[in-house]
Amino acid sequence: MKRTVYLDDLPWEAALEKYLSYLNDLGALNPGRPELVPAEEALGRVAAAPVYARISSPHYHASAMDGLAVRSYDTYGAFEISPKKLRVGREAFPVDTGDPLPEGCDAVIMIEDVHYVQPDLIEIIHAAPPWQHVRFVGEDIVATEMIIPANHLVRPVDIGALLAGGVDSLYVHPRPRVALMPTGTELVQPGTDLKPGDIIEYNSRMLGAMVESWGGKALRKEITADDFASLKATLASSVDEADIVLINAGSSSGSEDFTADAIRALGSVLVHGVATKPGKPVILGEIKGKPVIGVPGYPVSAYMGLDLFVKPVIFRKMGTVPPPLDTAEATVSRKMVSSVGVEEFVRVKLGQVGDKVVATPIARGAGVLMSLVRADGVIRIPRLSEGYNAGDTATVELFRTPREIRETTVIIGSHDNSLDVLANFLRLKYPEATLSSAHVGSLGGLTALRRGEAHCAGTHLLDEETGEYNINYVKRILPDRKVALVNLVYREQGLILARGNPKGIHELADLRRDDVSFVNRQRGAGTRILLDYLLGEKDIAADLIRGYDHEEYTHMAVAVAVKAGAADAGLGIRAAAIALDLDFVSIVEERYDLCIPLKYMDTPYIQRLLAVMALPEFQAEVKKLGGYDLRDCGKVMWRS
Amino acid sequence: MKRTVYLDDLPWEAALEKYLSYLNDLGALNPGRPELVPAEEALGRVAAAPVYARISSPHYHASAMDGLAVRSYDTYGAFEISPKKLRVGREAFPVDTGDPLPEGCDAVIMIEDVHYVQPDLIEIIHAAPPWQHVRFVGEDIVATEMIIPANHLVRPVDIGALLAGGVDSLYVHPRPRVALMPTGTELVQPGTDLKPGDIIEYNSRMLGAMVESWGGKALRKEITADDFASLKATLASSVDEADIVLINAGSSSGSEDFTADAIRALGSVLVHGVATKPGKPVILGEIKGKPVIGVPGYPVSAYMGLDLFVKPVIFRKMGTVPPPLDTAEATVSRKMVSSVGVEEFVRVKLGQVGDKVVATPIARGAGVLMSLVRADGVIRIPRLSEGYNAGDTATVELFRTPREIRETTVIIGSHDNSLDVLANFLRLKYPEATLSSAHVGSLGGLTALRRGEAHCAGTHLLDEETGEYNINYVKRILPDRKVALVNLVYREQGLILARGNPKGIHELADLRRDDVSFVNRQRGAGTRILLDYLLGEKDIAADLIRGYDHEEYTHMAVAVAVKAGAADAGLGIRAAAIALDLDFVSIVEERYDLCIPLKYMDTPYIQRLLAVMALPEFQAEVKKLGGYDLRDCGKVMWRS
Repeated sequence: MKRTVYLDDLPWEAALEKYLSYLNDLGALNPGRPELVPAEEALGRVAAAPVYARISSPHYHASAMDGLAVRSYDTYGAFEISPKKLRVGREAFPVDTGDPLPEGCDAVIMIEDVHYVQPDLIEIIHAAPPWQHVRFVGEDIVATEMIIPANHLVRPVDIGALLAGGVDSLYVHPRPRVALMPTGTELVQPGTDLKPGDIIEYNSRMLGAMVESWGGKALRKEITADDFASLKATLASSVDEADIVLINAGSSSGSEDFTADAIRALGSVLVHGVATKPGKPVILGEIKGKPVIGVPGYPVSAYMGLDLFVKPVIFRKMGTVPPPLDTAEATVSRKMVSSVGVEEFVRVKLGQVGDKVVATPIARGAGVLMSLVRADGVIRIPRLSEGYNAGDTATVELFRTPREIRETTVIIGSHDNSLDVLANFLRLKYPEATLSSAHVGSLGGLTALRRGEAHCAGTHLLDEETGEYNINYVKRILPDRKVALVNLVYREQGLILARGNPKGIHELADLRRDDVSFVNRQRGAGTRILLDYLLGEKDIAADLIRGYDHEEYTHMAVAVAVKAGAADAGLGIRAAAIALDLDFVSIVEERYDLCIPLKYMDTPYIQRLLAVMALPEFQAEVKKLGGYDLRDCGKVMWRS
Repeated sequence: MKRTVYLDDLPWEAALEKYLSYLNDLGALNPGRPELVPAEEALGRVAAAPVYARISSPHYHASAMDGLAVRSYDTYGAFEISPKKLRVGREAFPVDTGDPLPEGCDAVIMIEDVHYVQPDLIEIIHAAPPWQHVRFVGEDIVATEMIIPANHLVRPVDIGALLAGGVDSLYVHPRPRVALMPTGTELVQPGTDLKPGDIIEYNSRMLGAMVESWGGKALRKEITADDFASLKATLASSVDEADIVLINAGSSSGSEDFTADAIRALGSVLVHGVATKPGKPVILGEIKGKPVIGVPGYPVSAYMGLDLFVKPVIFRKMGTVPPPLDTAEATVSRKMVSSVGVEEFVRVKLGQVGDKVVATPIARGAGVLMSLVRADGVIRIPRLSEGYNAGDTATVELFRTPREIRETTVIIGSHDNSLDVLANFLRLKYPEATLSSAHVGSLGGLTALRRGEAHCAGTHLLDEETGEYNINYVKRILPDRKVALVNLVYREQGLILARGNPKGIHELADLRRDDVSFVNRQRGAGTRILLDYLLGEKDIAADLIRGYDHEEYTHMAVAVAVKAGAADAGLGIRAAAIALDLDFVSIVEERYDLCIPLKYMDTPYIQRLLAVMALPEFQAEVKKLGGYDLRDCGKVMWRS
């Protein structure tokens, strides 16, 4: 029988404060016993105690110039009109930079200011004040002075100063050891032959890398099956060998979610459930004075759980605080609705278009790890807000530097596989540049251009009356704008079918068959418009097609639906069929253009793209995808 | 005989552009042969090629909820008023989150929405649309899609996505191998017993840590003596084993500066000398198609040379560009003069005081490594500028995060060793907080308060008329301000003398002796005022004291001068004498207060200091320095 566990619903700040203060009272946030490390291996470690110089630097009076060391007293009275002569070896001593001053000397005259009268006699025309061109003992570091305080993160310059101050080793805080316990009978190691129901155990690798990037030491444990006894046994041994234990997952309230019970059996649970999305079913617990955290199973939730609750604990145990993320103010490009009572973390793409930074939300599912991979940052929708409207300004926590965002070309519109190739060659040719593409269909792209949210739009819109591509749509949607249509590719559209075409589908008319199910593209997609045009031509009624309402957002998603058996056929590009090893019946060649506002034409955003499109290696790589013709790639097809 | 080599004087941007373009034409900036690494070890590496998913994630239709899997078709017609019954095991199948959908099922009903009529019969009151609560194949990652492009820096989320997409290993750019050649007959390894003229070879450790922090691999070579043949031999072998070679130093134009000649003998020198300060005598060369760079010997110059010229080369060889430093606009607290024709990099301390960020320059010598250790950032004074006036706004490149700057308490004024202890305990108690202290003497500190450059000032100013400390000075210098004087310590001032007091100095009157030399503090320092007061009391004329004009800026510098034999006596605190194991003759106890504007009293800047001053462990540590009395520590002595 299923159990019902009611999770807490604390704001995460309150949960964190409660947790840290509980751990603090236990002493669980104190760093461990300091480690003595050689100064030259201390990069990135945190000093456990202040470090004081053992010697001064310089430790002797040193010449700061190549020249002659003198007693300043001997030089008094030297003027241009009455030069003074000094005997080399008795009153003046050749020194190079860094040499110690000979006994009794207290100044150096630069070689450029010396006139050799004879090899052993010089003439000078300026007196040398005491300590001229001398690096005094302790000029840089005075013996006993503090070089770095406790809890200081050691940087390269600190290593230099420590060694210069005679400090060859220092005590640093130990790196907190974080045990990662993957749990779940369905988990298999990467590289295993997969059967349905198997889940690759990648979370512990991602979470381990997070821990290491914060300065912790990740101890990855073997996979624990979903039974209470094994879980408890592994948990007990993990607590003994680590400073912090993370259990992933079983933190929710389902029938096989034993994590909270296991922690309770050995210690205590402070919080179970926080009011965030994603990341709600987190468990904050403690066993034997050590933090034990139940991390949700979905990868985005797991990431959030670590970022919110584990990062502060790791840094506190190293005597420091987590470095803050950069933030930027951005204009929200489309409505983001959120439930009141939950703080939602929305991943967004960012681009500097004209004078504003535009934020476009990407998939919000907790299971969509690629939403984090693709994200440029995160917008937090506060608990007591219902979200943002298009045009609102919101603060974004940045995953990339402001410069990277500034160097990003934003393309919004129809999806085509050649855009991945373009993104890749752009990065290769211009390491500082990025192509950010959002797939909202051809019409969506032109509308985004109208709202000033993109530098260009990918579009393949067939005018049902003229049979021509793009021009009439651009005139209608962007009537007052100066734009150019630059061709990217011609490509084959056709029916994507299961391997071997088991249902014998050969033309559009077959879609009317009762035993054939179809997967469509979303409204506004050029491919959807193409389908409707072709159906009209052949007088095929849409409501006779099973699955006409089953919508997907990209060619690849259509191909995946066919591959998975969720549909027998979809209309899409040949490259998508080839990529998934599916059959393909070609129907038509269509033109795919980039619509570019002229005001961006001469900016690096566009000029770099055009330069990459002209590269033979780019064009060759696109052709390899199959179904592409690049005869007009880079050519201006039309200008308004 | 000395040679005269005229160095170039190129702006560094022009030098860098010339160098990179030369290297680029040679192919010397291309990354090396890619390395295959396991995905889970790829953190921080840079992808050498785009990485495509090998499998979809999920790779099967998975339940997104705990519940029952059904055929959506079977659920049509279920309403609250006409529930629909389904037989468990035939039409409805229990599934947990992540389980594969049984054959034929295309939707999941949440367990919360199911009513069990019998153990094998359920009732539902809502129809389930197709794909409800199902994670479709490829919802996260579609097989063949690009997970990361070429030249992408691998982060923890990327590792998760790569493994989820069936990618267990990937090609990354090799870490550039950077040979570091320390040269100089005077160099000795850390830990060696030092004699005058020995220089600890710490530069290669600092530079190596810089290289490693950028992602390169540092190969530190043995020390090469200053002779042309050895230098050339080591250089030739370094070029063979590394991708980039750094020679430190010998890059200037002195008699033992062979670096440029050695590079020229084996390859070519593109640039010798750039118009920056520090960092001028840098050499940009090439041997066998590999970058070879002559790095100046002074540590700050060496640091600058690497930052300006080596960092871009290392990043280019990894297919990326260096991350930019954060910047902030700051108000310059005092005049910074710079020569026209040279771009100067001035290290500054920063603090948020009131509503502005204040930048205070610190020592500018190329040999003062502590100026980099202490710096919060750098202000660049452009080549064609003569500098900044006090009150000007300048852009600062930050070495610390804006939050760290915001959390810094700025104390400017008299120097006391207890301030180091205070800084240290502040950091221990508040890991996010920093104490930044600049030592400009007591009067300088009060003046800084008047200009709004500090949160408080350390002051010990004796009124020669009243014999009272601080109050009259505060009234005079800060007439309209509301401030409080809070005691930090009482401390012994006296004569700091060589160990064993060889000259038999016992009182101030001894300073008049012909065989006694003195070292003084700078004008405006409380100790200088104290000296003048004491001399007046005893009717001792200042011009009878040898060395009265020899000024140092801190107690420790005075002690160092005595320790080094540059002076026989100085007036200073007992703690400085104890630290350097010197003799001390006590003269007077003085009061050292913090002058705190009331408007800052309740801010964390001050409240944290007061909390730390109340800690018994802080007070105990100060007492250990010697010569301190903390009977009034934290007590308000006076309020305006």
